[in-house]
Amino acid sequence: MNFSKRLESAIKEKNSCLMLGLDPNPEKMPKQFHKQAIGLIENGESYEAVWSKLYAEFCMSIMIECTPYIMGVKIQMAYFEVLGSHGLLAVEHLIKVAKKQNLIILIDGKRNDIGATCEAYARAYLEDGPLGADSLTVCPFLGSDGILPFTKRCEEKDRGIFVLAKTSNPSAYELQDEIAGPLTNMIELWGESTRADNGFSSVGAVVGATNGDQLRQYREMLPHTWILAPGVGAQGGSMNDVLEIQKQGLGVIIPVSRGILYASSGEDFVQKAGIKAQALWEGQKQ
Amino acid sequence: MNFSKRLESAIKEKNSCLMLGLDPNPEKMPKQFHKQAIGLIENGESYEAVWSKLYAEFCMSIMIECTPYIMGVKIQMAYFEVLGSHGLLAVEHLIKVAKKQNLIILIDGKRNDIGATCEAYARAYLEDGPLGADSLTVCPFLGSDGILPFTKRCEEKDRGIFVLAKTSNPSAYELQDEIAGPLTNMIELWGESTRADNGFSSVGAVVGATNGDQLRQYREMLPHTWILAPGVGAQGGSMNDVLEIQKQGLGVIIPVSRGILYASSGEDFVQKAGIKAQALWEGQKQ
Repeated sequence: MNFSKRLESAIKEKNSCLMLGLDPNPEKMPKQFHKQAIGLIENGESYEAVWSKLYAEFCMSIMIECTPYIMGVKIQMAYFEVLGSHGLLAVEHLIKVAKKQNLIILIDGKRNDIGATCEAYARAYLEDGPLGADSLTVCPFLGSDGILPFTKRCEEKDRGIFVLAKTSNPSAYELQDEIAGPLTNMIELWGESTRADNGFSSVGAVVGATNGDQLRQYREMLPHTWILAPGVGAQGGSMNDVLEIQKQGLGVIIPVSRGILYASSGEDFVQKAGIKAQALWEGQKQ
Repeated sequence: MNFSKRLESAIKEKNSCLMLGLDPNPEKMPKQFHKQAIGLIENGESYEAVWSKLYAEFCMSIMIECTPYIMGVKIQMAYFEVLGSHGLLAVEHLIKVAKKQNLIILIDGKRNDIGATCEAYARAYLEDGPLGADSLTVCPFLGSDGILPFTKRCEEKDRGIFVLAKTSNPSAYELQDEIAGPLTNMIELWGESTRADNGFSSVGAVVGATNGDQLRQYREMLPHTWILAPGVGAQGGSMNDVLEIQKQGLGVIIPVSRGILYASSGEDFVQKAGIKAQALWEGQKQ
């Protein structure tokens, strides 16, 4: 099924446009993980091997607890890449678990490259290899020929992408505002051939939720584009501003990471994450 | 030693500004690797485990043969990520070999993200973890706060970055030309605090070698910036155009991948790669 249709059906099934962001960070993880890590490292296992297992355990238990309230998971590659090959083992494991939970999987890798190399990234993340997922965040800085290998997988393999348009960080304006017009035109064009009967295509966009006016402007410039809107919660974005740019309950995905993952630093971290996810879910129900 | 000084010393020692690009692609690799792969896969090893070993073997043997003619290696992450965690095992191995060969290591990952996540990429590639290298290619699309975690490692840990400025692909102009002025100003500014007595900083730029006029324009806009100029050879860029924007033999790095890696598809692939590297080396000697 076309990726845009799959988003629609996941959102309707769960009555949720929330996506759980998996950003494991040892500094913020509950204390019991640190105790466990110290023990295992003393027993001779490497730092990377140990934390890879703990990342997988931490993320998996929260993912399963939150499954009733979320339509998908977003795996932030950077945190796993810190652990090298061991880190990617954890990603491969989490992809398998998320598939079993029937969650839409987004790899947040912000990948970008030219022709043949871009083709390799598309093969890595939007086909059936060990890191194969439903969708990938991509950076448009290289222009169309750095995007077409990805849109090809949207057309032929029912995968999706989210193109960075306006990110949620303070200095996003420096380069992104100059090119907002041409870029949003290109995103709409890249998506045209995968536009579903729900009005949206398989080529989404990332637009930070930290500014309501901006969300509304980008919705106008991107009328047929799913908007992934990070920044609700920790970064100060408003849930209501994001919900306002939905069309018939569709067209928006709200990733939440730290607010759920680190809801508690104690033994009850799984339960508290579930409670937090449920509260966010209540707040966005139609 | 400051990264810019290390580039200078590597270039002077080898009398070379050539960097070997490692872009392993099974479709182009010599036939004996395919025979070996078929055998190992029939014996029950996974596709990814088998090709990871073959990538490492292929790249390592060429790297060692070419060491006299190159000042560094550029590892293109995309090709390895196709193999997931197994692929990164090959990268980890190649980093170790390159260190022993005393080559400058550039991870070509074109990474980019916001604050805390960007910090994770900087830790992954510009510190001492399993993927820790001397330098990383980065994408500036997110603006300053997506670059500062990297420049911090340039200042404090003697690492370097190469910021995408004008890539070598046909559609590079679409977004990059609009912002060439502000971006090149920012690159010079990001590098200011690491400028060495050779006149160049640890914050380099990627400028495609496919257009001589463009190279000269970017050199003017980036007077204190090492320019990594891909596109010589396979993509049609001219070695002389690139050499012309050197200053006292410095300020330029020329990556060559396919031209060397796939110099022969037969048993003599290592020897032919060495001959090709030597010829390129002769062509750029001062």
